[in-house]
Amino acid sequence: MRAVLMERGRLWVDEIDTPTPGRGEILVRTRACGICGSDLHAAQHTDSFVATSREAGGAFKLTTFNPVVLGHEFCAEVVESGPGTQQRFTTGQLVCSIPMLSRQPALAVGYSDQIPGGFGEYMVLSEALTTAVPAGTPAQAAALTEPLAVGHHAVNKAALQGHEAILVVGCGPVGLAVITALKARGAGPIVAADYSTGRRLFAAGQGADAVVDPAQENPFAHPELKHRDLVVFECVGVPGMLDSLFMQAPAHTRIVVVGVCLQTDRLRPLIAINKELSLQFVLGYSMQEFQESLQQIADGGFDVAQLVSHRIGLDEVPAMFDALQNPEQFAKVLVEP
Amino acid sequence: MRAVLMERGRLWVDEIDTPTPGRGEILVRTRACGICGSDLHAAQHTDSFVATSREAGGAFKLTTFNPVVLGHEFCAEVVESGPGTQQRFTTGQLVCSIPMLSRQPALAVGYSDQIPGGFGEYMVLSEALTTAVPAGTPAQAAALTEPLAVGHHAVNKAALQGHEAILVVGCGPVGLAVITALKARGAGPIVAADYSTGRRLFAAGQGADAVVDPAQENPFAHPELKHRDLVVFECVGVPGMLDSLFMQAPAHTRIVVVGVCLQTDRLRPLIAINKELSLQFVLGYSMQEFQESLQQIADGGFDVAQLVSHRIGLDEVPAMFDALQNPEQFAKVLVEP
Repeated sequence: MRAVLMERGRLWVDEIDTPTPGRGEILVRTRACGICGSDLHAAQHTDSFVATSREAGGAFKLTTFNPVVLGHEFCAEVVESGPGTQQRFTTGQLVCSIPMLSRQPALAVGYSDQIPGGFGEYMVLSEALTTAVPAGTPAQAAALTEPLAVGHHAVNKAALQGHEAILVVGCGPVGLAVITALKARGAGPIVAADYSTGRRLFAAGQGADAVVDPAQENPFAHPELKHRDLVVFECVGVPGMLDSLFMQAPAHTRIVVVGVCLQTDRLRPLIAINKELSLQFVLGYSMQEFQESLQQIADGGFDVAQLVSHRIGLDEVPAMFDALQNPEQFAKVLVEP
Repeated sequence: MRAVLMERGRLWVDEIDTPTPGRGEILVRTRACGICGSDLHAAQHTDSFVATSREAGGAFKLTTFNPVVLGHEFCAEVVESGPGTQQRFTTGQLVCSIPMLSRQPALAVGYSDQIPGGFGEYMVLSEALTTAVPAGTPAQAAALTEPLAVGHHAVNKAALQGHEAILVVGCGPVGLAVITALKARGAGPIVAADYSTGRRLFAAGQGADAVVDPAQENPFAHPELKHRDLVVFECVGVPGMLDSLFMQAPAHTRIVVVGVCLQTDRLRPLIAINKELSLQFVLGYSMQEFQESLQQIADGGFDVAQLVSHRIGLDEVPAMFDALQNPEQFAKVLVEP
């Protein structure tokens, strides 16, 4: 089968073996798979990504220097059910799955050198972690389940009481997923901050009550945030962000760290101490949160079309990884092998 | 009056003017004042302490390079009530106060070049922030109110549900105050970790259920902490501690940061993300928490005598600041001017 391979930052399209489903696994054909910021990080900073992932023991992260087929935000079509499955799915059925294969040890779909991720024609998935896409929902919409589940989970972990004002810092796909999840439960007011005009438009389209360009205006000074308890969703994930938030945030702000900063970061605890800030680091989602996100997509709870800015084939993936270095004009890019 | 002055790390005893109470203020004679880790930091690292305090806008911290009379953990005896007071206190009465003077702008008692702190013979205090020491409680015990209030507040901010196991990292005065506050509300089991034999003894004396030498044994592997939600109180406050806790802590650990790290720190967010850790930075205490701590001391709720390891006069303060570089044999040192 054809797939995009990544090895220490180099990407190329190649022929590799089609995977064979093991016990409890199904073979699927990838219909659409989003490019995630973590995929770009993994390619650009393979050495530090691998080193930190190994040290952290992170199941979702890249722990090998061998070539891998990236891609963990996918919707696929069932080809056949392997041995020991419950035959829950029929051929041709659209499915989504948590990007994890229940082998011993578990493998991360999209970060493993043992099995391919979504930037290839076929994958194997664990039947037990796979969910049918409700009828009528296109694969391109269902492929957004994974990033939306990240936002859904982050908002759950924030344990909002209902009276808080919200600031979303960074309106890339993660920030947009957080805004979507916030709107779905009526939280807000929501102020969204991003340097990019395009991304501020996406944020407004997803329902942010106000958008701010931090180059022009201090997001923390926005009138919507005044005199209210503040929860900040950090959706950028670059070094220096946390210390910058420490400096800008008012006392007692709760910061939910959704952006994944892969480098060692520097910060001044005294600033956070003087303001009694809190940080909640979040990762991933539960099976229930994943399924709820898929159902929300199926229910048409938000504008999927607006979140997808580009659809490309496998051959275009290497160039797109380069283009995404400057992500200004991109919301979510879907690969359709 | 005689006082210990500190200027950019140099300490000396000198004659300075006795302060005059302003409106709503009382003049007091200092009876006992504890040396706090922050005092040592302020002397040893004056430049960075001042720089970060100015940037953080911290009311409790040192923001000047002029000579100051340090000391903010005090019990004092009322000498006279100034103009505009409610005459709540009689001459000779023992009192404690939040180390803050309600002027415009507010002054931090023990960190200001405008008014002396507790390492001098006299101070002025805001009557409204001052509390009478219950009869029968000695000044040496009441002087522990401030550090105990820090522990009391930190435990309040932890919002314990009652089922958690607790690890206290660092058993200096802050860690001991946290253990005292935890015991007072029946939280635990409490495992306390410190490299110092002496400090582990203090921790056991304050009621820690187990003490661990991290050089010999991984505190996180202690049987008391197994299979329970874990709350860690970080009471060391040196660079590297947070990243080290990120590495050692199990997933979903809540870390309460009580130790005050004054330097820029380095940490790897990815480790905290992979484990969904949370950090709650804490500072100070409320008036109510301060008064509750004083009442707890008056009620004999814990062994005060054990917490005070040394009592010294003003002349001995400069040498004690040097000796405390190696804090192994010290719990709380009280200065009695």
